[in-house]
Amino acid sequence: MSEGGLYSLATRGAKDVIDFAMPRVLQALTEIKPYPDRMTIADLGCADAGTSLDMIRGAIHHIQNDSPETQVTIIYADQPANDFNALISIVHGRTRFESWVDQFDNAFPLVSGSSFYLRAVPDESLDLVFSATAMHWLSTKPCNITRHVHMVGASGPEFDAFARQAREDWETILLCRAREMKRGSKMVLVNFCRDEQGRYLGNTGGVNMFDTFDEIWKEFVASGRITRQEYENMTLPQYYRTAEEFSSPLVEPESPCFQAGLRLDSLETRVVPCPFSEAYKRNHDIKAFADGLVPTVRSWNQSIFKAGLDRGRDPENRNQIIEDYYAAYHRRVMDSPQGHGMDYVHAYMTISRV
Amino acid sequence: MSEGGLYSLATRGAKDVIDFAMPRVLQALTEIKPYPDRMTIADLGCADAGTSLDMIRGAIHHIQNDSPETQVTIIYADQPANDFNALISIVHGRTRFESWVDQFDNAFPLVSGSSFYLRAVPDESLDLVFSATAMHWLSTKPCNITRHVHMVGASGPEFDAFARQAREDWETILLCRAREMKRGSKMVLVNFCRDEQGRYLGNTGGVNMFDTFDEIWKEFVASGRITRQEYENMTLPQYYRTAEEFSSPLVEPESPCFQAGLRLDSLETRVVPCPFSEAYKRNHDIKAFADGLVPTVRSWNQSIFKAGLDRGRDPENRNQIIEDYYAAYHRRVMDSPQGHGMDYVHAYMTISRV
Repeated sequence: MSEGGLYSLATRGAKDVIDFAMPRVLQALTEIKPYPDRMTIADLGCADAGTSLDMIRGAIHHIQNDSPETQVTIIYADQPANDFNALISIVHGRTRFESWVDQFDNAFPLVSGSSFYLRAVPDESLDLVFSATAMHWLSTKPCNITRHVHMVGASGPEFDAFARQAREDWETILLCRAREMKRGSKMVLVNFCRDEQGRYLGNTGGVNMFDTFDEIWKEFVASGRITRQEYENMTLPQYYRTAEEFSSPLVEPESPCFQAGLRLDSLETRVVPCPFSEAYKRNHDIKAFADGLVPTVRSWNQSIFKAGLDRGRDPENRNQIIEDYYAAYHRRVMDSPQGHGMDYVHAYMTISRV
Repeated sequence: MSEGGLYSLATRGAKDVIDFAMPRVLQALTEIKPYPDRMTIADLGCADAGTSLDMIRGAIHHIQNDSPETQVTIIYADQPANDFNALISIVHGRTRFESWVDQFDNAFPLVSGSSFYLRAVPDESLDLVFSATAMHWLSTKPCNITRHVHMVGASGPEFDAFARQAREDWETILLCRAREMKRGSKMVLVNFCRDEQGRYLGNTGGVNMFDTFDEIWKEFVASGRITRQEYENMTLPQYYRTAEEFSSPLVEPESPCFQAGLRLDSLETRVVPCPFSEAYKRNHDIKAFADGLVPTVRSWNQSIFKAGLDRGRDPENRNQIIEDYYAAYHRRVMDSPQGHGMDYVHAYMTISRV
């Protein structure tokens, strides 16, 4: 597919997010010099690794440019249900993505099927940890949200249950990393957040994307297409933390994460624009906009919504509801494209293991 | 499926082969004591890792029984076309196989998509290397064999070309390992061989399995079903080495492998009986025998045979030829079961890295 095609746009947002982390990665690497003979970098929640290939290539180059004898191991990690065949194909250069594997004699990709809620490697193994756009997935859904599909629309005890789960999960993630990281190593994390202006993914001043998700499902309830219980089951098991929530276990001396040796070096939030709405602003091609945006959204929420539908429905009926749902979303964008989009809002952090 | 069902039998042969290596693995581990704080074991050409789960479990237990603080990393490696989704599902306990992952707090599975013709990890990383029933696959097919489908039926310059390729490949495999292995580490290899009595896989006194493969394809040539060129293209890119061929680079001081620090500790050959022909001898169930043996054979040679068929044939025609081929094999077993089977003939070796 040609440059600027739908596929490139779909991956470009996530890749832009990672590319913006590059100066932070290189800074972290510079601060851990001198480099030992063997170094290990982990990319946690890597999915198919396509969007981080350039970042990893840049990191290896940075290290071996300074220390040509240093042999670098890259550990790509994701949960067991990830598509590891796609990951290995991409990393080993069997796809159209430009892999780094053949560009270095002494850099070695390995793969882990352990989620970031578990330790994936022995204690004090890692020199650099990286993760992008992954840690908003909670380890479990603490409750259904009765009046929205996402915690950004929750309130009261339901919001509190999500906040509590997110706090526990963040601590679990950090404590696993504290054990895996060498003393003196660094961690660069790029995570969805709610920023100081209250912005978050798909909510940066235009139409609120999560409200759109919710409104369409509520229409399906109102028309009798799905039940109230199915709607509630669709609650997405995600939480977008604030800068304060990310920081506190890393700056408060009584936190077990702080006591395990983790320290916050810096945190900034950043909005990375939706490549589809940006293209639409330039070319005014409404159909291309809807054709690009809807599948991108669908790629990460379809499985959750579908799992919310009653198991008693026959599979064809379930599939049709899901098709109709995204068709309704597509029509909304076509009818009134202005303000739709999925701008990314991330917290970029660097963390030290002392 | 019940114990003793077809599936269990199909995997039991390969698992028996590995289980026979267990005393050798434990002996190798005993000889590399005392154990360091971190140890790494590689299983090369692991496929889906199902047949080596017990061996790996035993190795970790042996290490941590002696040295409870030692954290163990297991690197499962196979070529990029392997099914890594199946591998990760099995290793992470998402199938009916009993995984070791939840049985140890400090043992970590990692996966590599590098074949054993490449270095998969940095220099001096590995404490123990294991590989079973994998290294008979050559890196390339040196030529087609004109009068047989396998090197066991080749002669003259064609045989010599295979022997030369196998010698080069074996040296490549060993030199990669010499770099990856720590000084003082061990390697336990279990490889198909031609033994001192001239026996090899599927040729242990009864019907020669490879001659059967060949005879049926020759019938397909004679009847005009496939062309002579297609028959020649079907040459399997394998070589079954002799004990002498396995040993020589490890005992001859002028060999680059010897010079890189590899030494042969011991080598023995062993025949592991075909579980299907063993079951047939007990239960005289001819159909169960054919139903079990043919798919087992098919699992490793179908893709090679199919790739030999002319690309100009339409896919349905190619599939039908392959179906008819294995149906013909099935009929041969049904008509005259006596002597059919796929006994395994392996060389078991222990190699030191000095």
